Amino acid sequence: MSMTETSRIVTMDKIAALSKRRGFVFPGSDIYGGLANTWDYGPLGVELKRNVKDLWWRMFVHQRRDIVGIDAGILMHPRVWEASGHVESFNDPLVDCRTCKARFRADHLIEERLGLHVEGKSPAEMTAILREAEVKCPSCGNATLTDARQFNMMFRTTIGPVEETGTTVYLRPETAQAMFVQYKNILATGRVKVPFGIAQIGKAFRNEITPGNFIFRLLEFEQMEIEYFVKPDEAAEAFEAWIASMQGWLAHIGVRGENLRIREHDAEELSHYSSRTLDFEYRYPGAMGWRELYGLANRTDYDLTQHERVSGQDLHYFDQAENRKYLPYVIEPTFGVDRTILTLLVDAYDEEATVDVNGKPDTRVVLRLNPRVTPYKAAVLPLLRKPELVEPARRIFDDLNATLGVLLDYDETGNIGKRYRRQDEIGTPFCVTIDFESLEDQCVTVRHRDDMTQDRIAIDALAGWLAERIA
Amino acid sequence: MSMTETSRIVTMDKIAALSKRRGFVFPGSDIYGGLANTWDYGPLGVELKRNVKDLWWRMFVHQRRDIVGIDAGILMHPRVWEASGHVESFNDPLVDCRTCKARFRADHLIEERLGLHVEGKSPAEMTAILREAEVKCPSCGNATLTDARQFNMMFRTTIGPVEETGTTVYLRPETAQAMFVQYKNILATGRVKVPFGIAQIGKAFRNEITPGNFIFRLLEFEQMEIEYFVKPDEAAEAFEAWIASMQGWLAHIGVRGENLRIREHDAEELSHYSSRTLDFEYRYPGAMGWRELYGLANRTDYDLTQHERVSGQDLHYFDQAENRKYLPYVIEPTFGVDRTILTLLVDAYDEEATVDVNGKPDTRVVLRLNPRVTPYKAAVLPLLRKPELVEPARRIFDDLNATLGVLLDYDETGNIGKRYRRQDEIGTPFCVTIDFESLEDQCVTVRHRDDMTQDRIAIDALAGWLAERIA
Repeated sequence: MSMTETSRIVTMDKIAALSKRRGFVFPGSDIYGGLANTWDYGPLGVELKRNVKDLWWRMFVHQRRDIVGIDAGILMHPRVWEASGHVESFNDPLVDCRTCKARFRADHLIEERLGLHVEGKSPAEMTAILREAEVKCPSCGNATLTDARQFNMMFRTTIGPVEETGTTVYLRPETAQAMFVQYKNILATGRVKVPFGIAQIGKAFRNEITPGNFIFRLLEFEQMEIEYFVKPDEAAEAFEAWIASMQGWLAHIGVRGENLRIREHDAEELSHYSSRTLDFEYRYPGAMGWRELYGLANRTDYDLTQHERVSGQDLHYFDQAENRKYLPYVIEPTFGVDRTILTLLVDAYDEEATVDVNGKPDTRVVLRLNPRVTPYKAAVLPLLRKPELVEPARRIFDDLNATLGVLLDYDETGNIGKRYRRQDEIGTPFCVTIDFESLEDQCVTVRHRDDMTQDRIAIDALAGWLAERIA
Repeated sequence: MSMTETSRIVTMDKIAALSKRRGFVFPGSDIYGGLANTWDYGPLGVELKRNVKDLWWRMFVHQRRDIVGIDAGILMHPRVWEASGHVESFNDPLVDCRTCKARFRADHLIEERLGLHVEGKSPAEMTAILREAEVKCPSCGNATLTDARQFNMMFRTTIGPVEETGTTVYLRPETAQAMFVQYKNILATGRVKVPFGIAQIGKAFRNEITPGNFIFRLLEFEQMEIEYFVKPDEAAEAFEAWIASMQGWLAHIGVRGENLRIREHDAEELSHYSSRTLDFEYRYPGAMGWRELYGLANRTDYDLTQHERVSGQDLHYFDQAENRKYLPYVIEPTFGVDRTILTLLVDAYDEEATVDVNGKPDTRVVLRLNPRVTPYKAAVLPLLRKPELVEPARRIFDDLNATLGVLLDYDETGNIGKRYRRQDEIGTPFCVTIDFESLEDQCVTVRHRDDMTQDRIAIDALAGWLAERIA
């Protein structure tokens, strides 16, 4: 089945339904009717996510000597967000409908209704455009839209007992700033020299009004991010190297190339802090289409300059080889954890026409995930739930668990065909079946998820056989 | 050196200083003068913390077939916290000084000044006690303390653009409730049967006014928590089994027994939801003394009952074997991640009188961490920074990195004695030194952190030798 066909088979609804049915992702606060745009990772989702984060950390921190990690707080000093520009500029322009109380992004409304791009225009200018064109509420049709006003997307809370005397702080809207704020301590302790990077995996929060598309856009999301500090005149070259590293990562976790592309931001789209930015885009199913998966930006020395100014601390780097001080430029590769999970599920989803055990037409759903990221690396299944099979099956499970140090599944309930299908649907690459012949020949049947072929493997050789295929 | 002596050598100040100097833990928002009671994990701290969390997950989720994991949001539906009792009861009684604006916990003030325990008393009763005894402000000495009033310790924020129309939500003050809220989905998808557990590692937030003691009590902290669902009449037995499991965990990560004890809560101290609770206490240095490290509680069916009532969902479990429905009881072992890190550092800290390279009296600081948790499992050190040593040293580093899949350090700067001391201070159990003899005999010197003895090991055998000692 070609990739083009696959991309037609998968839909966001199928992914969300499979995620809930199999325990990858549940709606947040589900028994309370949910809380909009919050999702919880279930037993399989948490393992998939752990694998992704561990592989990322191993590739970008452990296997490189030029990158160190940190794990900083979600609550930071409020001046951090003054320095970064978030207090002033991290806004969405919104209009409300006085009649039906619906709320819209003014820029999106103008783009949809009038086909105009208004990036960079003020709320007053957007209001004037909406009034001029007599744009009505898209929900109820009344001409009762308010003026556009800026709304800051940071979640605000208060440290201290009462709001009058407490300190207003924000839930960080990105992990990046922690790397700039701790850059001086890292220089003092981390035995690092430019070029070097600081990596972090952690949560960030954005109070957005139009999230949606399952886990694509969340109020609360997890980022894997690196701030890579380079000599200013080597920034362009480092940027190119990071494109290759990010492509290497996508290949490592098994995202196929057909639905990936790189899109450069043009001059108008560039953030105020960036001299070059590009998005790794993935083609999601249906109406979503091409959307940003990852980002790569040359942030120049914008952030360090700002933090120097606002904090009053010297953040210049002393380059011993050149015997001079400078502010490094920063290359920033950003990887959303939740988007990685969504992309892996979408990219791996496949359906095959087949027949069931009774010979009736049936559909085999299979997640063709790379074994590196699958929740279970293998499932151990006694052919029948009989003591003479269950007992050796459990022993094999325990041995593999101890030897391989990876998560395995064990399942003795239901007919073997249904158990295979369940493992296909959650992406388990190998099913190890113990049958009556196993008691004679000390071999097991290993079934391959992708093509359903089977190998007969000696129990003694099983751990080694699997280890080779799941690394 | 005996444990008793060790416990006298270590102080909280030494731990905080070493943590900053070596990059375990930095003050949060440091270049902005810090933000009270927030801390960031640096390059070594993040590795120590990753190891602790991975070992915990492996022991309690991967190596057991009766526990599954989840990873739920920090933001949950506000009714969750009505059901749990946090909106009504998660309060501290506070008094302010009108003169100097200092703020105190009323119950702590009464206990310190008057030696009275006032748990369970109302703010009005505490106010009466303070007035009666004419208690003055401990900071400025004026008789200008306000009445005591309750202050809820949950951080509050708003989803949606403006506070008037948004939804008030809380940053979760504990991870536990997510397991109760997703219990129904887990039952539906997780192929679990009572007894079973749901495990989670994640952040929680408490807006407390008297935190302190380095990372002991934080506004923002990480929990490793399990809700273990059992048949009501098997709860007492499961509780006992969990005491043993928690002791097994502490031994696994190498916390020594001398400074550990178990303390049962008496009837007055028990939370409203608990029929039995105990604390694993650790004896921290100096004035801190015995404090709660971990907790174990029998929460009965309190939470499921509450969530059933408030959500209107049926949360009863159908027991096929007994052919009846019931609400399981819940045993809850809670492990603070940050307290684990603090405890490991305190427990491992040691100093030895020695002499430096010039024969002068010196102190060797050594972190006697279990190799399972150390940031680096070994350091590779060329004796001198000469190409003929650096080149094979880097090759050995790369080989070990690829073979062992663990984090290693590489250091070629400064004299070898100083490099050993640095590795001692960060807990690296083994230093691998490549000297000129190595070029002849294809062996390296491996120095043991704890007793500084040295072994000569063939380069070919090194990976295997290390693998045996760091598992």
